[in-house]
Amino acid sequence: MNHQIGKLYGIGVGPGDPDLLTLKAVKVLQQVSVVFTAASSKNDYSLALEIARPHIPKDARVHPLAFPMTQDVAAKQEAWAANAAIVADILKQGHDAAFLTLGDSLTFSTFGYLLRQIKDRYPQVAVETVPGITSYQASAAALNMPLVEGEESLLVLSGAQGGDRLREQHHKPDNVVFMKAYRNVPSICEALDEAGMLSHAAGVVSCSLPGEELIRDVSTLLRREPNYWTLIIAKKSNSNGTQEG
Amino acid sequence: MNHQIGKLYGIGVGPGDPDLLTLKAVKVLQQVSVVFTAASSKNDYSLALEIARPHIPKDARVHPLAFPMTQDVAAKQEAWAANAAIVADILKQGHDAAFLTLGDSLTFSTFGYLLRQIKDRYPQVAVETVPGITSYQASAAALNMPLVEGEESLLVLSGAQGGDRLREQHHKPDNVVFMKAYRNVPSICEALDEAGMLSHAAGVVSCSLPGEELIRDVSTLLRREPNYWTLIIAKKSNSNGTQEG
Repeated sequence: MNHQIGKLYGIGVGPGDPDLLTLKAVKVLQQVSVVFTAASSKNDYSLALEIARPHIPKDARVHPLAFPMTQDVAAKQEAWAANAAIVADILKQGHDAAFLTLGDSLTFSTFGYLLRQIKDRYPQVAVETVPGITSYQASAAALNMPLVEGEESLLVLSGAQGGDRLREQHHKPDNVVFMKAYRNVPSICEALDEAGMLSHAAGVVSCSLPGEELIRDVSTLLRREPNYWTLIIAKKSNSNGTQEG
Repeated sequence: MNHQIGKLYGIGVGPGDPDLLTLKAVKVLQQVSVVFTAASSKNDYSLALEIARPHIPKDARVHPLAFPMTQDVAAKQEAWAANAAIVADILKQGHDAAFLTLGDSLTFSTFGYLLRQIKDRYPQVAVETVPGITSYQASAAALNMPLVEGEESLLVLSGAQGGDRLREQHHKPDNVVFMKAYRNVPSICEALDEAGMLSHAAGVVSCSLPGEELIRDVSTLLRREPNYWTLIIAKKSNSNGTQEG
């Protein structure tokens, strides 16, 4: 080959508001010739691309990679390997490329899977990861609600398994985040109630997206249609930082 | 009064790299006439200001607020109240103002304390919080190491109490972050070892600052001078996302 292998960038584009991109993400996007997006979920895919779009040069190629939503481990591994091969192939042509993820690039993100495949199979590829604002940080900001202070702890959970991950904690965390609470709001509210955290909880629906809603009383979510973009932040107590910090 | 009350912005400026500011933080900084910084720790103070400096207009006033490092609750509360009064006074003159914090504005940040005082004492003041990249996200990015994947959990702890906050967890989190491990590296390594997490741990010293170091074997930190800016990320196992995602 008469050209250098391109560099792979993992870019966290934040939760929705295009102004929550970092300067670094913008600089990288302006330089790469290929932009990969994950097509695992229609929501995630189109949104990450939409957020980044204003910073992607007109002549850059946008390349969706299919990430199957299956529970079949073999099928999944095959898909990751195939996607890594596609990415490596383009890098080997000398192109720098960016892979877009919603929120942070290494927090519940598809980029982690791609990264592992690339590191294992194509160790000669240079990878640079650019962090992004997570939906739970943006939600705390929208609520003007501290996430974690002083000597407190913060537990971040996917909402996909409902309240059980909180239930199994004998020492409850001082603060807990359930991302994508979605259909599991009832189970999560139950677990928060058992832990005495429900009255110190707040929610955000569609954080930093059009139609964002701040939910000061999380139990009202029980009476609504489940929304995919539902995030819950709860506290052990209405901590008073002046006493604990 | 013949002018409107100004707006207060809480700005997370990220962990050090000026390019990790968000576009939103930059836009806000370019608009405000007063920039508050926390002078609780010389390190924090000068660094947050240094990161933001290129985006602060020449004619903006930089105003350090003293936050005492005391354990005396009464002295601390008095200081928060006094600082809130200073901020409110400037806002009442019609100025918009930003308060700078390292990392994220609501993650182990002094802004949380100011926010509470302002909300309690000056409910007429509008506050907008702008999230920032945390040191643990930037560290995971520098290490190219996923923070949390699939159905895993992430526990974020201050390092100030050593390893005990991890020890008290009967169900160990899948992933744990100790921020500012500093002098508590030995205690934290001990707790990680007990939890079987030490061999899946990595560290970053001075993340995204000049002299940043990636520490692939955290136990080497035990043989070094403690560094204030030491962060440790550890995993229950070398999780394989293709199996868990």
